[in-house]
Amino acid sequence: MTRHTITAFEDELNQLKSLISRMGGLAESALAASIDALIKRDNMHARQIVEEDKRIDELEREIEAQAIEILARRQPVADDLREIVSTLKISSDLERIGDYSKNIAKRSTVINQSSPLKPISVIPEMARIARRMINEVLDAFIERDAAKALAVWQRDEQIDELYNSLFRELLTYMMESPSAITPCTHLLFVAKNIERVGDHITNIAEIVHYVARGELIDAARPKGDTTSYAVAGGPAKSA
Amino acid sequence: MTRHTITAFEDELNQLKSLISRMGGLAESALAASIDALIKRDNMHARQIVEEDKRIDELEREIEAQAIEILARRQPVADDLREIVSTLKISSDLERIGDYSKNIAKRSTVINQSSPLKPISVIPEMARIARRMINEVLDAFIERDAAKALAVWQRDEQIDELYNSLFRELLTYMMESPSAITPCTHLLFVAKNIERVGDHITNIAEIVHYVARGELIDAARPKGDTTSYAVAGGPAKSA
Repeated sequence: MTRHTITAFEDELNQLKSLISRMGGLAESALAASIDALIKRDNMHARQIVEEDKRIDELEREIEAQAIEILARRQPVADDLREIVSTLKISSDLERIGDYSKNIAKRSTVINQSSPLKPISVIPEMARIARRMINEVLDAFIERDAAKALAVWQRDEQIDELYNSLFRELLTYMMESPSAITPCTHLLFVAKNIERVGDHITNIAEIVHYVARGELIDAARPKGDTTSYAVAGGPAKSA
Repeated sequence: MTRHTITAFEDELNQLKSLISRMGGLAESALAASIDALIKRDNMHARQIVEEDKRIDELEREIEAQAIEILARRQPVADDLREIVSTLKISSDLERIGDYSKNIAKRSTVINQSSPLKPISVIPEMARIARRMINEVLDAFIERDAAKALAVWQRDEQIDELYNSLFRELLTYMMESPSAITPCTHLLFVAKNIERVGDHITNIAEIVHYVARGELIDAARPKGDTTSYAVAGGPAKSA
């Protein structure tokens, strides 16, 4: 390969990386906006978020098309090959984060039909952590920084802990106020969506770590979501 | 390329395909088993399913490793390249189906702590449709049959319809029996998990169609899950 060709190839890889950054930025904005629509009870904004998710989906297709083109034309091996395959996987996680944000926006319009719910207050805190994790995992990806990816991966536990306590609080709240069952159920799914966003960021962190270091994260994934076993008012049980 | 090399390459592709088949078979079994554990209230079986999910995760890693090796060594282009990338995506959807089944198994052990719930009866029917869809989409993948993939894709609506009506039924049931809120909430998530399984099969159907026909499925995805907007006893609203 001539010097010229190498540079052109690097340019293509950088373009692919910057598409991932852009997609991550949109996913983070969508999450922020959906929580904002929920807290400010702003249905118009919520409907706009649902519409804007299409741009995130388009970016996923664009990344796939470019990745396949680079694979076909450049036939990369080793690290470059692994990096290109990783962009395919990361874009699929980011697409899911966009979808979960869209779903929060949809549910917010139903939650807004009822009077404000007290347990909602923990939601913005969960989302704040998730948004910071998105930003940091994208930085880790761009900088190929395994240590940063590991730090993001560990932080997911904070979201899971907030989710676990909110899950129990909502079950108790529903028993005491059966008339609030519909909005509380949607709030449960909103919380679950943010918890899933955290899982997808954790996936991305694992991919980034693997690409940067060539090895899997050497620890069991912190299994923070124990709510599959949760009962109202019950103690946290390990998953 | 000599005749010999082509055959070896085709062998490798067929091996990759058969790994996908095996992974799909395990995912389908896991779904069947988790519903069985739920309906028969069999906690021991449920714990076994949680344990067995690791084999599905391992297969995903094996498929990725083999796909990357084939890409590096054979440097395929056009259809072959697209097919290999598609196996990466399909294995990630199958891994998620395994995860959702595992989660159903976990939740069944909590549901089994309460007396049997009437609305549970629709769950096996939802799972039956999903299992048939898994089998058919795997056949479509092996046979590169776009028409079969499209038929699977359309069938997802049936799962969504069952989910929509179950969602409303459960909200009403919880209002009438606040003491059943904990098991009903877990049952809601079980139903949601099967609905998500349907979505992942739909994804696979789209990938198979694209690989076989070189074009996207030419119809808006049937958006059957309208529960993000659902209220108890309320009418179905379009998403």
